[in-house]
Amino acid sequence: MSFKLSGWDDTITALATAQGIGAISVIRISGKEALTIADKIFISKKISEQPSHTLHVGLLKHENTVMDEAVVALFKAPRSYTGEDVVEISCHGSPYIQQQVLNAITALGARLAKAGEFTQRAFLNGKLDLVQAEAVADLIASNTEASKNAALKNIRGGFSNTLKEIREQLLQFSALIELELDFSQEDVEFADRTALYKLISNARITVAALIESFKLGNVIKNGVQVAIVGKPNAGKSTLLNSLLNENRAIVSEIAGTTRDTVEEIININGVLFRLIDTAGIRESGDAIETMGVEKSFEKMQMADVVIYLFDVNTETQPELDAAITLLKEKNSNYILVANKTDMIGLEKASSIFENNDVLFISAKSHLNMETLKELLVDKVVRGAINTENSIITNARHLDALKEVQKCITDIEEGMQQQLPGDLLALDIRRCLHYLGEITGEITNEDQLDYIFSKFCIGK
Amino acid sequence: MSFKLSGWDDTITALATAQGIGAISVIRISGKEALTIADKIFISKKISEQPSHTLHVGLLKHENTVMDEAVVALFKAPRSYTGEDVVEISCHGSPYIQQQVLNAITALGARLAKAGEFTQRAFLNGKLDLVQAEAVADLIASNTEASKNAALKNIRGGFSNTLKEIREQLLQFSALIELELDFSQEDVEFADRTALYKLISNARITVAALIESFKLGNVIKNGVQVAIVGKPNAGKSTLLNSLLNENRAIVSEIAGTTRDTVEEIININGVLFRLIDTAGIRESGDAIETMGVEKSFEKMQMADVVIYLFDVNTETQPELDAAITLLKEKNSNYILVANKTDMIGLEKASSIFENNDVLFISAKSHLNMETLKELLVDKVVRGAINTENSIITNARHLDALKEVQKCITDIEEGMQQQLPGDLLALDIRRCLHYLGEITGEITNEDQLDYIFSKFCIGK
Repeated sequence: MSFKLSGWDDTITALATAQGIGAISVIRISGKEALTIADKIFISKKISEQPSHTLHVGLLKHENTVMDEAVVALFKAPRSYTGEDVVEISCHGSPYIQQQVLNAITALGARLAKAGEFTQRAFLNGKLDLVQAEAVADLIASNTEASKNAALKNIRGGFSNTLKEIREQLLQFSALIELELDFSQEDVEFADRTALYKLISNARITVAALIESFKLGNVIKNGVQVAIVGKPNAGKSTLLNSLLNENRAIVSEIAGTTRDTVEEIININGVLFRLIDTAGIRESGDAIETMGVEKSFEKMQMADVVIYLFDVNTETQPELDAAITLLKEKNSNYILVANKTDMIGLEKASSIFENNDVLFISAKSHLNMETLKELLVDKVVRGAINTENSIITNARHLDALKEVQKCITDIEEGMQQQLPGDLLALDIRRCLHYLGEITGEITNEDQLDYIFSKFCIGK
Repeated sequence: MSFKLSGWDDTITALATAQGIGAISVIRISGKEALTIADKIFISKKISEQPSHTLHVGLLKHENTVMDEAVVALFKAPRSYTGEDVVEISCHGSPYIQQQVLNAITALGARLAKAGEFTQRAFLNGKLDLVQAEAVADLIASNTEASKNAALKNIRGGFSNTLKEIREQLLQFSALIELELDFSQEDVEFADRTALYKLISNARITVAALIESFKLGNVIKNGVQVAIVGKPNAGKSTLLNSLLNENRAIVSEIAGTTRDTVEEIININGVLFRLIDTAGIRESGDAIETMGVEKSFEKMQMADVVIYLFDVNTETQPELDAAITLLKEKNSNYILVANKTDMIGLEKASSIFENNDVLFISAKSHLNMETLKELLVDKVVRGAINTENSIITNARHLDALKEVQKCITDIEEGMQQQLPGDLLALDIRRCLHYLGEITGEITNEDQLDYIFSKFCIGK
């Protein structure tokens, strides 16, 4: 790192486990005073003299008060999460004891860690790059197999390795081109233009694929918005309940997410689907009902996919045609679903709307529900689960990659137009900058503070 | 142990940290399969081959799914909390990951632990006696210095050592007296009656002190109930706020405690005081108001101490006398507190009620508030904090100690009446039984299940 963050030298401490009562809770200390502080409060053994990666049972004491019987885990620098000396104290899980131990640790010279500060130190000490660090927060917030996989893949290197490789090669070219500038009178070319062109072309493909993957990454991280629209009697509630019964997701609220609509969340094949039941759609002169319809239109437009649900027994072809016209206007990613098929039988139902691409179900008798779920997955996230491809889930990475893409286009055009080396070097340097911003080779304190402020305390 | 509990042989697992999102969460496995299971899900190293009390960083994997990067802590039998092989896995604190790892562990043959089952095993394996085991739950629920100290003292031996000593000596006498019975024809006395009498007499003193300590133990554990009564204009809210501002307690709800009254909780010198603001007390013909008054009377009777608060500027001597009469009838542990003293000055105020034991305060201008707090502590828990004496906080112990006390009286009376050895032996055996029940030398499955069912899961 080319700069030191304020408070960088402090020893920091925080509760690392969730708030509240549990059997145990873990308090983490990191920094150059971690061992000294541990020696002062752990009276059964001299922690600083123990080997790294060992566990010690004994008493915690501060100012004549025995605080707890605890287990101390020791990770000596640099073999720790942060790269600094780290001590983790497992106390009994009483919030009172947690507070008392934290108070003792801060009284002995540590300060309470800011959100994400342990991971920030891991980054600053080179244990993680910035993409990996950000993936730690994503991993903690993950609530499906797909979102967990994406985060875990990024923690273990993922696409940042690819980007770093591109950046390194580009750096070499940059150096050679800048060398050419020193010999500009002599008109030499140190940088092999063909090899550069090939590298840039490869980079273009990689970056485009990553940018494209964000669409998937976003739904993996935030879930697929599904708007269910249809007339009031189409059976929307029955459909919702049928889907919920079997697939209700265990979802934990993540701080900072707010939702202005009531949604039900289900988990299909490891991906969250956020089902929004909209008000019935129909023409109306009533002002309040019109407002409801407008809201429905909004939800349709915002959704990743729209289910148009209708009663196969009462829907007419003109009604369905009108709905399709509306759907095409609002959101072309839709599924036509005919409900209550059990009442007239699948064969007869199929014959009615044979010219349309309709899925015939019965939410009540669970007919074709699996097919509907497959269709939902198909429409948005086909291949999202267990893919070996890198997926970006972070808007910051998307923005930077788009800048990289622009630079690549500029470099390619510049080479085609045989621009002079100094202009080419400028574009390459810009490209290097944005690549470095993603993985954290180039960064600044404000940006880091912003990124880590979204972490939880203790991580 | 003379019996084996059902499920005793199973390997058990549970989340040991609090529910919810945290930086990390800890999953505990205990039992003979703990190491085998750890070997199966931790793919970076063979856990079973590592030395005890060591930490290992690596990947968790189950059925081709990488679950997390985690730290595994290893405690080999018998050097663990339960006395069995114990593995503690620190994963990233996502509830989704917790669930996935727990599912993998149970799929590999462990079952989810019942509440308190880890501690129950520690007890059954002789790592803790029953009093110590119960103190673990108390420690986790503790929310003041006093309650934490009482629990910690009991975990570290506390009064159960004293009781065990008494029991052991009594056991020897019991054996000698029963030996006498075998030689009853010969009229010999193996058991030294004087020494037995001395032992019994010491036991009586110890047991009486422990029973007496429960009054203190109970308020340490559950807080001191303070009913604040007085006319509506006496300034009860101001008093409450003044006390709350400086002393508001950090209290965590403990599962199973319900309260039917609204109370404010403050922490004075490490003891919780539960302040109950009662409706104003005055005679009334109105049915609803009478109900309110009746409720106030109830609260006064249930309280550990009553504060009668009045406005020193308006209260008349006859009114105060009437209040005192009522207080003596309902709850004789009361404090008379004259409020709004700032308006007429301390000297003048003191002269008004010089025949009564009145504390003059001004809640508004914080006059004599410290004295009030000291008085509150004096009235109930003088010496409770930092006492070196053993304090019992558990109603089960109280009940058993009362039975022990009865037996001791019977033994003493029996000896005075020179009862025959077989009858004396019967009383001693009863006494031994109840002593053994407290520390767990004598117990049964139902009782244990009941005791540990009140623990939290994961402990």
